[in-house]
Amino acid sequence: MASTDKTAVDPETEPKSDAAPPDAEAAVAATAKFPFDCSVVDVALRILVFAATLSSVVVMVTSDQTEVVPVPGSPQVSLPLQAKFNQSPALIYFVAALSVTGFYSIITTLASLAVLLKPVYSKSFLLVFAFLDVVFVGIVASATGAAGGVFYIGLKGNNHAGWTKICNVYDKFCRYNASSLALALFAAILLVLLSMMSTFTLYKKIRD
Amino acid sequence: MASTDKTAVDPETEPKSDAAPPDAEAAVAATAKFPFDCSVVDVALRILVFAATLSSVVVMVTSDQTEVVPVPGSPQVSLPLQAKFNQSPALIYFVAALSVTGFYSIITTLASLAVLLKPVYSKSFLLVFAFLDVVFVGIVASATGAAGGVFYIGLKGNNHAGWTKICNVYDKFCRYNASSLALALFAAILLVLLSMMSTFTLYKKIRD
Repeated sequence: MASTDKTAVDPETEPKSDAAPPDAEAAVAATAKFPFDCSVVDVALRILVFAATLSSVVVMVTSDQTEVVPVPGSPQVSLPLQAKFNQSPALIYFVAALSVTGFYSIITTLASLAVLLKPVYSKSFLLVFAFLDVVFVGIVASATGAAGGVFYIGLKGNNHAGWTKICNVYDKFCRYNASSLALALFAAILLVLLSMMSTFTLYKKIRD
Repeated sequence: MASTDKTAVDPETEPKSDAAPPDAEAAVAATAKFPFDCSVVDVALRILVFAATLSSVVVMVTSDQTEVVPVPGSPQVSLPLQAKFNQSPALIYFVAALSVTGFYSIITTLASLAVLLKPVYSKSFLLVFAFLDVVFVGIVASATGAAGGVFYIGLKGNNHAGWTKICNVYDKFCRYNASSLALALFAAILLVLLSMMSTFTLYKKIRD
């Protein structure tokens, strides 16, 4: 994809810089070096990251389910018991990490839009984006891993440790958790792509 | 650290390129653009990643512990039961991910050494390193998260789900798991630093 982008951009931007008046030369040169479509894709992916993290947090937070289950020890007595994300430290970490990532994606979307409109600071922004994106890849991936590990115990249980599965009882809770995890995984993959794109754009600047 | 690196390198490499004979000019120019110490740090960090992932895998694999515990349901009967990493899918994923990362760190250490000795391909290598490092940040972070989430249940249990803690019985297993997790976290942080360093070196090439 990256190489076809390059061949599509060069013929468009280079004749433009020849025809431009001298006072707009610096701006056009900056635009020629920082391909327009790459920046648009950057903004679009960051909006997608925001959408994915927001939905993931909303789905996880609204996943609580109350079921009438028999009390362990006295099977004839049943009580309504609630399953909620804040009963597991891993899921609390998941919500916190995804919320921070959502907030980060708002800020970087605005910064990316600013670069689109005024490309003179694009190099510094690309560097900062490439740095921070890697950190957030780590945060989102670890949160997804932690929540996924706990979710899998809830889904299948663990005979060796004597941990019983809970998804046969709390089916809605587990379905919501699974959707939330899928969205978080999607956000993590998007962040990897964004980080790669920032680095690749820096690399293209060297070659040009 | 990065800014002091730059000021430390420039006085060393620039007079050298003035004094160099014309036939070695290209090689020296490449070395001047790709600072020597940065590459040495890169190799050193990659060796550290290998050491951390290898130790992490070895500690996790050797963490098995057998304890005589009472059989649930009939407390007067006790049986020797074993706790081992392969009883949990999260810990199996952890060992697999860390093994792959260790293998990756061997390959990139060799590639980084090749760049040290022959810096002409440094740009392409830096790009590939920056791309792959981000992917492995995600892999190691998610593996650490998954194993950490399961480890925390083993350490503290979860009253809401009825999952009892096992670390009061399998103390050696839990200590080994904790050490393994700490080493994996260290490897993940090193990979973030390596990815940032590759990107920063690309950025410096633009500015120089």
